Amino acid sequence: MKKLLRFLPCFLLAAPLAHAGRPVDFPSYDLYLDHILYDESFFVVSNLWMVIAAGLMFIMHLGFATLEAGFARAKHTVNILYKNIFVVCLGFVAYAAFGFHTMFPGEFNGWWHPGGWFGVPSKDYFDLMTPRYDNLTWWADFLFQSMVAAKAATIVSGAVGERQKLVPFLIYATLLTAFAYPVAGAWSWGKGWLFRQGFVDFAGTGVVHIFGGFAALACVLLLGPRLGKYDAVTGKPRAIPGHSMPLATIGLFVLWFGWLGFNGGSLKSAHPEFLGLVVTNTALGGAAGGLFAMLLTPILVKKPDLSMAINGVLGGLVAITGAADIILPHHALMAGAIGGGVVVLGVLLLEKLKIDDPIGAIPVHAFGGLWGTLVPAVFGSANWQWQALGAATYALTAFVFSFAVYGLLKITVGIRATAEQERTGLDITEHGQEAYPADTVAQA
Amino acid sequence: MKKLLRFLPCFLLAAPLAHAGRPVDFPSYDLYLDHILYDESFFVVSNLWMVIAAGLMFIMHLGFATLEAGFARAKHTVNILYKNIFVVCLGFVAYAAFGFHTMFPGEFNGWWHPGGWFGVPSKDYFDLMTPRYDNLTWWADFLFQSMVAAKAATIVSGAVGERQKLVPFLIYATLLTAFAYPVAGAWSWGKGWLFRQGFVDFAGTGVVHIFGGFAALACVLLLGPRLGKYDAVTGKPRAIPGHSMPLATIGLFVLWFGWLGFNGGSLKSAHPEFLGLVVTNTALGGAAGGLFAMLLTPILVKKPDLSMAINGVLGGLVAITGAADIILPHHALMAGAIGGGVVVLGVLLLEKLKIDDPIGAIPVHAFGGLWGTLVPAVFGSANWQWQALGAATYALTAFVFSFAVYGLLKITVGIRATAEQERTGLDITEHGQEAYPADTVAQA
Amino acid sequence: MKKLLRFLPCFLLAAPLAHAGRPVDFPSYDLYLDHILYDESFFVVSNLWMVIAAGLMFIMHLGFATLEAGFARAKHTVNILYKNIFVVCLGFVAYAAFGFHTMFPGEFNGWWHPGGWFGVPSKDYFDLMTPRYDNLTWWADFLFQSMVAAKAATIVSGAVGERQKLVPFLIYATLLTAFAYPVAGAWSWGKGWLFRQGFVDFAGTGVVHIFGGFAALACVLLLGPRLGKYDAVTGKPRAIPGHSMPLATIGLFVLWFGWLGFNGGSLKSAHPEFLGLVVTNTALGGAAGGLFAMLLTPILVKKPDLSMAINGVLGGLVAITGAADIILPHHALMAGAIGGGVVVLGVLLLEKLKIDDPIGAIPVHAFGGLWGTLVPAVFGSANWQWQALGAATYALTAFVFSFAVYGLLKITVGIRATAEQERTGLDITEHGQEAYPADTVAQA
Repeated sequence: MKKLLRFLPCFLLAAPLAHAGRPVDFPSYDLYLDHILYDESFFVVSNLWMVIAAGLMFIMHLGFATLEAGFARAKHTVNILYKNIFVVCLGFVAYAAFGFHTMFPGEFNGWWHPGGWFGVPSKDYFDLMTPRYDNLTWWADFLFQSMVAAKAATIVSGAVGERQKLVPFLIYATLLTAFAYPVAGAWSWGKGWLFRQGFVDFAGTGVVHIFGGFAALACVLLLGPRLGKYDAVTGKPRAIPGHSMPLATIGLFVLWFGWLGFNGGSLKSAHPEFLGLVVTNTALGGAAGGLFAMLLTPILVKKPDLSMAINGVLGGLVAITGAADIILPHHALMAGAIGGGVVVLGVLLLEKLKIDDPIGAIPVHAFGGLWGTLVPAVFGSANWQWQALGAATYALTAFVFSFAVYGLLKITVGIRATAEQERTGLDITEHGQEAYPADTVAQA
Repeated sequence: MKKLLRFLPCFLLAAPLAHAGRPVDFPSYDLYLDHILYDESFFVVSNLWMVIAAGLMFIMHLGFATLEAGFARAKHTVNILYKNIFVVCLGFVAYAAFGFHTMFPGEFNGWWHPGGWFGVPSKDYFDLMTPRYDNLTWWADFLFQSMVAAKAATIVSGAVGERQKLVPFLIYATLLTAFAYPVAGAWSWGKGWLFRQGFVDFAGTGVVHIFGGFAALACVLLLGPRLGKYDAVTGKPRAIPGHSMPLATIGLFVLWFGWLGFNGGSLKSAHPEFLGLVVTNTALGGAAGGLFAMLLTPILVKKPDLSMAINGVLGGLVAITGAADIILPHHALMAGAIGGGVVVLGVLLLEKLKIDDPIGAIPVHAFGGLWGTLVPAVFGSANWQWQALGAATYALTAFVFSFAVYGLLKITVGIRATAEQERTGLDITEHGQEAYPADTVAQA
Repeated sequence: MKKLLRFLPCFLLAAPLAHAGRPVDFPSYDLYLDHILYDESFFVVSNLWMVIAAGLMFIMHLGFATLEAGFARAKHTVNILYKNIFVVCLGFVAYAAFGFHTMFPGEFNGWWHPGGWFGVPSKDYFDLMTPRYDNLTWWADFLFQSMVAAKAATIVSGAVGERQKLVPFLIYATLLTAFAYPVAGAWSWGKGWLFRQGFVDFAGTGVVHIFGGFAALACVLLLGPRLGKYDAVTGKPRAIPGHSMPLATIGLFVLWFGWLGFNGGSLKSAHPEFLGLVVTNTALGGAAGGLFAMLLTPILVKKPDLSMAINGVLGGLVAITGAADIILPHHALMAGAIGGGVVVLGVLLLEKLKIDDPIGAIPVHAFGGLWGTLVPAVFGSANWQWQALGAATYALTAFVFSFAVYGLLKITVGIRATAEQERTGLDITEHGQEAYPADTVAQA
């Protein structure tokens, strides 16, 4: 605890520094875009970028899968990989069936809008193909947004790993992706009430990261810690190291790579100045988060811990996500560094609170997201009150929804694997497979 | 067997459903493209997209390498990685030397066209650089098509794994890539006789997947199953699990990622409506294949098997490959789901037939490809007869060529490793290396 | 030794062949670009390509991390991954703080130019955002160049692996990236004295590969070989195989993938003819290097060694890097093949010289880079003398700087882990972590 307090001055220092350099007269996004010729050609390029950005968002799921698998024990790895493949498939299908129409194309009715494309007769598809909005086609928008939609469930997937029952989690993940996320997302990105109040969330620090992070928190509280994580008598935390640091590191690099498309694609155009600025900020935010975590960790835990470096970069990336288009590179460095610090302290805090999150999803996405939602107000000109209210809204919505749904599953079918299953490993008990089978002996 | 029959209704159901929604009046591709201004700028963007799509196709070889290695035993892993590196290098060089000119740029003479660039004097290269066709340069077209060309041999590489001799396989792979594939490919994509009859194959479900899948079938029949796969007495199949599910899962995600470029690049332009539609269909086809396989597998084999989920997604992707530009998203979902089902049933069928395909290349590419070649007729307006005939043509050509060439190698130099080599592992016997050497002890 | 000589004719053969086909009248780059309309639209597309190319360069760091980790022993893997994450983060931040202004935007004062963006008041950022040069914005240029800057330190990181102390290496890497690289880079790419003399280096075969490779050589000479690499009595080399060939192979494919963006992005535009040509040359160079190494290795070392195949491809890629925009595909094949041969011979040469480079960074980047710097003169029309002088300049600068700085660290804080640490593994001694922890047993 004393160690945590020792670090407070850093945060106190950050606020005035940040304000000193705040660009009060940053030209508004809309104004700036007027410099560009909005012609057919710009539309074609922007649409191509959105498709590529959707591809980059897709490959982030490889990043999540390897990060989560690397930070878990070998005996639960198949289970984790299976969940990750499921979540991607589900993201596409559920968003096509329900999510996209609920969240977006101007048809949001304030509530759930099931059906979407599926009730549409073939001939009307052509009408859907024709209308263009922003600088991308209906299809490119669907691709990009469906990839965003799958992220929330993926964040939870990592946090509940190594102990949850498979089927109840898949049911919960389906409801989260198909129903809760698009409704809550519409409040901000679908031009809903938060948007109309001036809440700023460029690429989902609230809509995606706070939402996923607090959903994870609710699920983890319902599940309880893994067996042996906290000593039954003394309550002291024990390290349960993940089984493969190379897998986790692959995860980090792939996530960072994909994040360039997540933030860059959130521009919804290939506007040259802004695309460069956004991707530069994303790169610098992650880098600063990583460097600061690498500086801070040896002070706090004595050793240069690789997991902390990885989560520090992710914290920096979450921190920059909400404001990458309206702040400047030196602010991106500060925002990212603080994000990295928040995650390192958050990991230590969770252990104090006896909450067990095997991959650090809650520090990165929930705590990092809270900081990231304030960044547009700290370094940009967004409204403090509405940023705070927006953050609270997404945190609360995700928490309450998850607590209700996963809680209902808990008291009905059960959400937690038995102690015996957890000891044997979910791979054998749920899937009848091992992640790393020994070579079978060939017989003549 | 009863289990298989139990599932027939699903397929019977699919046909009428499919027809109900068939878009008979889908505007022709050529018509639609007229909406776009075909200017210099569109050419520059399209060419850029083709180069990027070629890059995405390139990274698919990382996907194949990791998928095949993950599904094989550790003791044959170096051999598999070596073959995969060879096939990529070969693909580029052989296609530059022979393939591209045989298959494409309007110079196809109905037979093999060796030489290509290599007889061309330096000064004539500039003439090659100038002419443009479609919406890409000569170079971008070469890049994209050479990456397609390497795929067929890669598909075979996985199926013959863990028991083939290295050098004869490399000879066979060279002949397949440099000679058989471009000649057969020209029949459809080089505006040959199949194309002129109206055979539709958007991104290679026949040209690549049926071709590679049936080549694999011929080779696997010549090689015989791995030692111990089928009990010598009872004939019962034994599971020989691959050594690393994380590697296999990395393979799946990377393949899916690259597939977005494979199908998207097959448009040969960055036309905004169609690019979005094609990539959307590709995403949804894979997702539906995965979800349906995840639903079907627990019914048929009791457990939610990760390998089946992986191959289900791949089956969905193969299914959508032939028609991604002419069907609509809800049809893509159906086509993909059936593709996933075909693969799951195909894996079980191969075991019944005592054929041994370690990574499921035959179910995915041969069986999935057969279904995928029919998709343009089922959901689009392609001609049934010619789709079926095209599928048969590619299946037969690949099978006969492979049976002849690999068979000739069998009776001359031999194609199969000795039982002793197979037991020890090809890594040690062929390469003198292990995939995962234990740490050597350092001495002072 | 006799084996090496046996191979000399191949090199003697290459030179006349190369000259025979030299395109003396290759139109100059500037001339050719005139065919294109330099309008707003071309700028938008080119800028998008530069951002994507920067992303591809970013993912190369995943390639380096996995290649280095795969070629190292398991007990030093966390250390290697940590260094790789540090170098990426550092690359972005140091280049923003010092490097970019030292090396580039016309503000180079012949020496170090610290500060860069950080002294700039907020309002002046807008002036920075407006000016455009070449075909990309300030931001896209920063992104791309910062990713180049991180490469040099990464090359060294692999060579010094498994025995260096962490903190002194991080200090050295920081000075290399923030100070030495941008100053030396400005001599060629910042329109400095080498550039003005006609030294040609398209994508960094001298600026990056020779520089990184000879920096690695100096560091490796200061460090000495790993314990047990050379027998204390006989001096005979012992093989110390890396712990994971799949990781190393992932590294190769990811590096090759990223290299398409490294070379393609070095065009600084999306010019369709040249973009296609450059990426085609890059693909063919790597492929030829790989094939030639796969042909040569069984002759020299009896077995088809996977590591040699991997390094052969990398050698081919380095060889083509300096001239990818001014030579033709059949020359790219020859340049790449020779590059692959240089690396195979270089690996054997280093063992003769009792130099220990665990991952082959010196053969690939230093020796491959020397050959690659001559390629623009051999196959293109660059000046022999200045290519040779440029190569010597970068080799010498990197070697002297590294020898001085790392040498100073050696005599002050020490650069080498103790024998005990090296035996235990740097993961435990430096980081208190293992790369592959065994599953902890869960307790009730």
